[in-house]
Amino acid sequence: MNSIADPEAEKKRAAHQAMALVERRGANVTKADLAADTGMSRAKVDALFPEEDDLFAAVVDEWYAPDIAIMEEVCGSDLPANRKMYEFFARRFVKEKARYDADPALYALYCELGTGQFHIVQGYIELADHYLTEIIAEAQAEGYFPELTINQALSLINQITQCYTSPQVMLMFASKLNTEKLAIIVDTLFAGLAGADRGAAGTVKLRSA
Amino acid sequence: MNSIADPEAEKKRAAHQAMALVERRGANVTKADLAADTGMSRAKVDALFPEEDDLFAAVVDEWYAPDIAIMEEVCGSDLPANRKMYEFFARRFVKEKARYDADPALYALYCELGTGQFHIVQGYIELADHYLTEIIAEAQAEGYFPELTINQALSLINQITQCYTSPQVMLMFASKLNTEKLAIIVDTLFAGLAGADRGAAGTVKLRSA
Repeated sequence: MNSIADPEAEKKRAAHQAMALVERRGANVTKADLAADTGMSRAKVDALFPEEDDLFAAVVDEWYAPDIAIMEEVCGSDLPANRKMYEFFARRFVKEKARYDADPALYALYCELGTGQFHIVQGYIELADHYLTEIIAEAQAEGYFPELTINQALSLINQITQCYTSPQVMLMFASKLNTEKLAIIVDTLFAGLAGADRGAAGTVKLRSA
Repeated sequence: MNSIADPEAEKKRAAHQAMALVERRGANVTKADLAADTGMSRAKVDALFPEEDDLFAAVVDEWYAPDIAIMEEVCGSDLPANRKMYEFFARRFVKEKARYDADPALYALYCELGTGQFHIVQGYIELADHYLTEIIAEAQAEGYFPELTINQALSLINQITQCYTSPQVMLMFASKLNTEKLAIIVDTLFAGLAGADRGAAGTVKLRSA
């Protein structure tokens, strides 16, 4: 097996080659496809990506790299919590929308690949939850989201903003999503999200299924 | 062609036979399948369902019949707007969750069929929008959702509650959805949804994609 001078840089480069191939073919690519298409030796492909999953994981890392940079930048900023939460969702949404608009079919293909290998995408979702948790804690320190635990607020905010984070929703309703609506949704959260019962469910609760 | 005494009742009965067949096979059924399985003459099937789409449309009607009954009952009640909106979403969600829990694979199959024939499902979505519009108008008469047109409020509320109305979300996140969270979401809407800019987006807007 060849020794590889800078394996991280090589993996990144190979992931981008794999993505170019996905785009050209309109289908997922295997390690064998990557070797055949790039002329890279199979030994080198195996050294970079020991398991078949490792190649797709590297592609997912490249796909989400701009999102992670956005989340780090927003959370590291000195904005107040409401501004942070808006930027946290809006910047990633604008980027995803641009990616969708550039090639809806390719975007749909990546969604399908991600759904099929959800365990690989899961780590990114957990990282997004981690950053959102930070913003929620700051908001609660400012007095927002009273009478909710951080985890309750996290689950509710994820549900309420799901249209702006779900690739599947992007595929179905891209034309109905925009940053003006997202701003109203975040303003609504900061004005109204709280744990207290304010009467919508009535005094006699519906039985849960 | 046979004359059919009560065509609506016959269509309903045939739709339920088709649904039993979908459940048994785990796949969509055609008019030919329905005739072969039930022993109904092809002439009678053709009289009930002139086009292939008409059979699936009848199945969709039966699938959504309980939802339509719920929406009619809720909108016809004398509850205040916040209670109406909660019941509007919660009762249908509880029913869908029960349907999902009873047979997740069958539920997924119906989702797939519905996605593939979205133009048939579209009418139901428009009817739900019609009823939700009524509730929004009542809420606005009570002073809620200020500075939003009815259509703006409709779009925002549909986006915010989408987790509780989307069959696709049910398939992905059924275990995270419950009526307690939905009650908080509806309370949040009535406490916080408004058209005024309250600062989340900042003074310099992000460029839209």
